[in-house]
Amino acid sequence: MIAQLGPESAKPSGPVDRMNAMIDGIPPMHRMGLRIVALSEEHVIGAAPLAGNHNHIGTMYAGTQFGVAEVVGGALWLPNFDTDRVYPVVKDLQIRYIRPATSDIRAEASIGTATVQRMKREVVATGKSDFVIDSVLTDVAGVVVATAVGTYQIRSR
Amino acid sequence: MIAQLGPESAKPSGPVDRMNAMIDGIPPMHRMGLRIVALSEEHVIGAAPLAGNHNHIGTMYAGTQFGVAEVVGGALWLPNFDTDRVYPVVKDLQIRYIRPATSDIRAEASIGTATVQRMKREVVATGKSDFVIDSVLTDVAGVVVATAVGTYQIRSR
Repeated sequence: MIAQLGPESAKPSGPVDRMNAMIDGIPPMHRMGLRIVALSEEHVIGAAPLAGNHNHIGTMYAGTQFGVAEVVGGALWLPNFDTDRVYPVVKDLQIRYIRPATSDIRAEASIGTATVQRMKREVVATGKSDFVIDSVLTDVAGVVVATAVGTYQIRSR
Repeated sequence: MIAQLGPESAKPSGPVDRMNAMIDGIPPMHRMGLRIVALSEEHVIGAAPLAGNHNHIGTMYAGTQFGVAEVVGGALWLPNFDTDRVYPVVKDLQIRYIRPATSDIRAEASIGTATVQRMKREVVATGKSDFVIDSVLTDVAGVVVATAVGTYQIRSR
C-alpha cells in the first residue's frame, strides 16, 4: 500500500525539521548544504558536507565551517522559546581553525537550563537577552578541526 | 570589427582579476557573489551583494559578511608574495556584527610594508609566517555594519 502523503504529513514538525526548514529559507546556508541532525533543549548537532565546499587547497572552506558553527548556536533558541515571539541574531563569533577539514564535519553545542531560565526572565523584562555558545567542530574520524565561540541575542518580535 | 578574444586576452592579469579568479574557483565563495574590487600591496576592498544572501530577518546573512571579511585579509597576500611559492590560510577570525546590513556591503583592509618585510624574512627562514588583519565592513551609505580581525598564515608550497 502506498502511503498517502498529504500537506499535513509533509509539514515539518519536530525541532530538527523546523530548523532545517529555516536553513533552507536562507539561500547561502541552503547552498552550503548545512543541516541540523539533532536538536533538543540542551544540545544540538549540525553537519556540513565537504562536497561543494572545497577551498583553494582542497579542504573545507573556512566560511562553511563558520556556517555550521554559527547555526548550531542559534538553533538552541528553537526548542527553548516561542519562535512566534522571539527570534535570534548573532552578535559576535570567533572561530579558531585547528586542522584542515578533509571530510564532512559536525558541530556540537550545548546550553544549560540555568542559562535558558535567565534568558526567559530577561526577554520578558527587557525584550532581549544575550547568550554565549561554544561549539566544537569535528571530522568523520572525530578529530577536532575547529572551535568557535559565538555571542547571540534573542529579541522579541 | 569584432575583437578577436584568444586565450591570452581572456587570461586574468592584474591582482584584482587574479584574486577574483581564485574566488570563483572556491564554490561557496563564488555562490555568495564575493568580489575583490581593488587590491594593491597595502590595501584591499572587497564586496558582497545583498541579493541572494538574505537571512531569516531579511538582512545580509552573517556568513556572507564573514566571507567578505575573511577574503580581504587573505587577498593581501597576492600582490606581496610569489603566489607560486606561498599560499595563505586563515587560522582564526572574529567578526563583530554592529548593525544589520540592509544593502550590498564592502570590506576594507590594509597591511603595512614593515609587516610584509617581516613576513618575507620569516617565510624564507621557517617556511611560514603569521599576519593579523583588521577589516571594516560598511553598507552603501558608508555606515559600519561589522568589524573583523583575522589571523592568517602564509606557507611555502
